Amino acid sequence: MPDTFRIGLLGHGTVGAAFAELLEERADAIAAITGIRPVLSGVLTRSRGEFTALLDDSDLIVEVMGGIEPARSHALAAMRAGRHVVSANKLLLSQHGEELWAQARESGVQLRFEGAVAGVVPVIRVLQESLAGAHVERIHGIVNGTTNYILSEMRRSGASYADALRQAQELGYAEADPTDDVTGRDAAAKMAILARLAFSTPVSIDQVTYEGIEQITADDMAHADELGLGLKLIGTAERVEGGISVRVHPAFLYGGHPLASVDGPFNAVTIEAPAITEITLSGPGAGGPQTASAVLGDVISAMIPPASTPETIDSLPIVADVVSAFYLHMEVEDRPGVLARIAEILGESGASIRSVVQHGMGDNARLVMVMHPITESSFYAGVERIAQLPFLRSRPRAIRVIDEEFM
Amino acid sequence: MPDTFRIGLLGHGTVGAAFAELLEERADAIAAITGIRPVLSGVLTRSRGEFTALLDDSDLIVEVMGGIEPARSHALAAMRAGRHVVSANKLLLSQHGEELWAQARESGVQLRFEGAVAGVVPVIRVLQESLAGAHVERIHGIVNGTTNYILSEMRRSGASYADALRQAQELGYAEADPTDDVTGRDAAAKMAILARLAFSTPVSIDQVTYEGIEQITADDMAHADELGLGLKLIGTAERVEGGISVRVHPAFLYGGHPLASVDGPFNAVTIEAPAITEITLSGPGAGGPQTASAVLGDVISAMIPPASTPETIDSLPIVADVVSAFYLHMEVEDRPGVLARIAEILGESGASIRSVVQHGMGDNARLVMVMHPITESSFYAGVERIAQLPFLRSRPRAIRVIDEEFM
Repeated sequence: MPDTFRIGLLGHGTVGAAFAELLEERADAIAAITGIRPVLSGVLTRSRGEFTALLDDSDLIVEVMGGIEPARSHALAAMRAGRHVVSANKLLLSQHGEELWAQARESGVQLRFEGAVAGVVPVIRVLQESLAGAHVERIHGIVNGTTNYILSEMRRSGASYADALRQAQELGYAEADPTDDVTGRDAAAKMAILARLAFSTPVSIDQVTYEGIEQITADDMAHADELGLGLKLIGTAERVEGGISVRVHPAFLYGGHPLASVDGPFNAVTIEAPAITEITLSGPGAGGPQTASAVLGDVISAMIPPASTPETIDSLPIVADVVSAFYLHMEVEDRPGVLARIAEILGESGASIRSVVQHGMGDNARLVMVMHPITESSFYAGVERIAQLPFLRSRPRAIRVIDEEFM
Repeated sequence: MPDTFRIGLLGHGTVGAAFAELLEERADAIAAITGIRPVLSGVLTRSRGEFTALLDDSDLIVEVMGGIEPARSHALAAMRAGRHVVSANKLLLSQHGEELWAQARESGVQLRFEGAVAGVVPVIRVLQESLAGAHVERIHGIVNGTTNYILSEMRRSGASYADALRQAQELGYAEADPTDDVTGRDAAAKMAILARLAFSTPVSIDQVTYEGIEQITADDMAHADELGLGLKLIGTAERVEGGISVRVHPAFLYGGHPLASVDGPFNAVTIEAPAITEITLSGPGAGGPQTASAVLGDVISAMIPPASTPETIDSLPIVADVVSAFYLHMEVEDRPGVLARIAEILGESGASIRSVVQHGMGDNARLVMVMHPITESSFYAGVERIAQLPFLRSRPRAIRVIDEEFM
């Protein structure tokens, strides 16, 4: 077993650069887990580097150059030469997947492509491995972050499609030419790949029907609100009478659907099968670091088949006293000075009040507070002092608050 | 390579019986994917079967008997004999994980345990494989379906804890003795396993602090609504100053948190790391079929290391004309007979109206309808006829509705 594992990188755009950076940052930890140190053996771009030399120096090829050629030829040549290939190229896999998978089987190497669909959301691995034994009936996915951001903004602010698109472009969520995203074509490529894996039947992007979001109006959004529905660009791959259907189009979702609450530039996929009911995976859509993280997960899997049993590589102390935000519920007598006295004790304990509501009057008065984050022992010491106050009618009740606002 | 792969089953309770059934149902499909046919070589329960004979007849041992002994001894003996082990035993792994993992490494076999945490939600595989290269900072999880069901019911109906617990017991979501669930101990075992994997440091259940939901009142739920917060039993594993913290307690969540909308007997886990921001995995909590499906995914992975490239095993036709529900938006002149004429055409097309709303008056009148599911070609043919009507002020707009109600 070699001490190092050499990775040749094809492409040095957003994802390629992020991968090179992440690999360097995580090389020590990966070496600790796997016993092998991954190193970048070389980088090839359209304008520099020589493929054959890079291949000779590599145990595995990471292909993140995008487009069909030369990505296709390089991936095939690498596998013929006995190298594992990790690709994040959705277009390549949705158009030439069968040819590539056949080569991988023939050469006895791994072809992994988690980064091609839904960024860091591990839908490829889950379909191929966790659900290898399941009979998948249907997949619904929000697999394009750009369009999901645009639709979320239209809903949130009442903006028109054109204005929301412009804003997405300003924030870097949409490209200068957004055609592939807004027409649904990008999502169609991803759904072709998911359908191929779910149903073990050839599916190419040309067989996926798709509609985009260009026709969606602020008016549709208002009606969606009124009807209690979400409006998303949804990719569907499902078994139907006579075969399968793979398609992408805008769709309304009932409020309780797991995809209805996925807002902003996020991706999410729901997989349905009889034995599992359904599972949902969600996370940020493809960005450089996210896709690079998916690629790195694939690289490590290719380094160490089969899955390792976890080594203990650290011995971290368990810390008992952590920082939390709190909700504090107190039943008190409604008389002057009560709130002041409680606030004084909390202040002395280092607790800072974020909001306070008083309910009821006289004998039924209750104070409900939400506190800013504080070390738990300090907070409970303060609560203990409050519990001794003569005007408390019962023990105060404290419940932690997960104090993070997500978008 | 053998034509068959023999699986010895330890335990034949809810999960064991569901696994035996699922294995038989899916054996053909697995043989098609892997080239190897999995067969059940024998079953051992506390009252029948002989372990040594079963081991001799098996390539892999599935341990779903629960409890510490004899599960621990059998798993160790199986690995010493060179057999892979798949376990769904959270108690065993959270108490004796280090001993078991050490034996797996020493014997060079796989020890897989997806079914031990969060049923079919593939958090173990994602942590061990997809995120093998990530620096996990924090995990938040709803990892006990019983308590999540109880809290969801308290919120939905205003029921007391005692009433919601009784209802959960009647529906089979809670056991007759719910102690392990409602005290948070079951969740603590699962969080110990997740923390161990996320931080590569030994964590046993004894090091996890936990509080249950017995003290939560209907009043707390009312305040949660008022504050726009969700209230869940949350497991946390995170890096903190000086080490790590692993704990389980009730906590409020802001509405936008990915776990806030997880209701009913569901599990969900959010994993945070710098390169990925965060990903969320969710699905039904441990039930027999769900856990069996997770176990089967592990079995297949152990059968075919490394991950296979997908074989085409089917050639399914792509069906273009599928059944969808629709939203239909029409700008019309507000005069008698308009709705009747539109409804007539829809009826002739086979479309059935689920709801209809009229907005505005006179020149600004709009009709918004939601239709029951219908074949798309039939629906669009009807829409085309409606588009020709003289009182339409612009082309009607149709958008599909994903017509499923989730709980």
